Amino acid sequence: MQNFNISGHISGKFNQELESLKNAVLAMGGQVELQLRRTLTALRSEDKRAAEKIIHDDNKVNEMELRIDDECMRIIARRHPTASDLRLVLTIVKINADVERIGDEVERIARMITLTDLPASARIKADMFETGQQILEMFNSTLNAFARMDSESAKRIHTDDRKVDEKYKHLLVQVIQEMQDNEEIAPAWLDILWSLRAMERIGDRCKNVCEYIIYFVEGVNVRHDDTDFADE
Amino acid sequence: MQNFNISGHISGKFNQELESLKNAVLAMGGQVELQLRRTLTALRSEDKRAAEKIIHDDNKVNEMELRIDDECMRIIARRHPTASDLRLVLTIVKINADVERIGDEVERIARMITLTDLPASARIKADMFETGQQILEMFNSTLNAFARMDSESAKRIHTDDRKVDEKYKHLLVQVIQEMQDNEEIAPAWLDILWSLRAMERIGDRCKNVCEYIIYFVEGVNVRHDDTDFADE
Repeated sequence: MQNFNISGHISGKFNQELESLKNAVLAMGGQVELQLRRTLTALRSEDKRAAEKIIHDDNKVNEMELRIDDECMRIIARRHPTASDLRLVLTIVKINADVERIGDEVERIARMITLTDLPASARIKADMFETGQQILEMFNSTLNAFARMDSESAKRIHTDDRKVDEKYKHLLVQVIQEMQDNEEIAPAWLDILWSLRAMERIGDRCKNVCEYIIYFVEGVNVRHDDTDFADE
Repeated sequence: MQNFNISGHISGKFNQELESLKNAVLAMGGQVELQLRRTLTALRSEDKRAAEKIIHDDNKVNEMELRIDDECMRIIARRHPTASDLRLVLTIVKINADVERIGDEVERIARMITLTDLPASARIKADMFETGQQILEMFNSTLNAFARMDSESAKRIHTDDRKVDEKYKHLLVQVIQEMQDNEEIAPAWLDILWSLRAMERIGDRCKNVCEYIIYFVEGVNVRHDDTDFADE
């Protein structure tokens, strides 16, 4: 396994810069994780004011992303990294984009909470919360795998995503069942579908990040191993 | 407007390399566009064999993406680009990832066609095809905007996405209505929802690409101007 910390850079200062770049992404990830946790709490208690605050706080994440992107450019322009250092910086460019977009999905769920009185049954609400918890765990593990550039963990998360998908598919069927039992189409049902989709997209983005980690560490592209539509 | 072709590079050879890098992304985009067009034809005629061929051909796109990524790295490592050249290469790294993922979404729609006898009415099928055509047009315009690094077109596409979203939302309501009129839940209905979602994701990815173009040309981040959940 390629170790990010012991790759013999020319300059210790450069090493520090790479380390602090990685830490910046982890800090942004931590902020997004916090936002997701708050969103799930707001979802459970249907707390619209809390959800509004979360939407407002997404700006922080957006600013962090832009700063990280600039820093990546600055490092490449000043340090002329080659080989694995350059690959690390380019991997961070991609992971940065995915983590920021996870923040966007979290914001969408929060927005749904502010808009809608959830028409779904207590059972569905409980299941939505539980699916959200699974996604939160997946995101947390993804950030840990990135922190340690641990491709084994990344592979596990990538595979475990099937379980989250199973849960999600099951939940969608339930939602549709309840929708079918209702005479009229409340737009709120679509809001529920959208926020479930946002959760599932967070899972997808976590998988993207894991793929980048695996590709960086092992040079193996696992992106297209799992193309079974039914499992998506 | 910053012009990609007249930025006074040190070496003409380097200019050529950047131009051919951009052309490689356009060639990959052209391949994805072809796949999407074929998929829509297969959708209209419910031609499972044609859809299987499309799935098989996605490999080409995946290979193209990896080659482009390698070429970006090679250029940075050899040429040490700075300022706008470096920004261009990093923009291409991101656009490359998005276009490849558009290919994945196309593959998902094709996979749905191989799996399912569409239970939906002729009207819904016609609307799905029409939505697909709009998405195809959006993708084509996006590639053109990238070819010319035309931020005005990119902004127009970014705004016009609302129309596609309106269409998509309208179609979802129709699908749900038909589902509600059906006694049992056919998994095929979920397949229809998934493939609609795949179309909508292609629209999202096109928007991502447009945002990168605008950011490259104008240095303005429009990513977070449109956070209205209802319009998503």
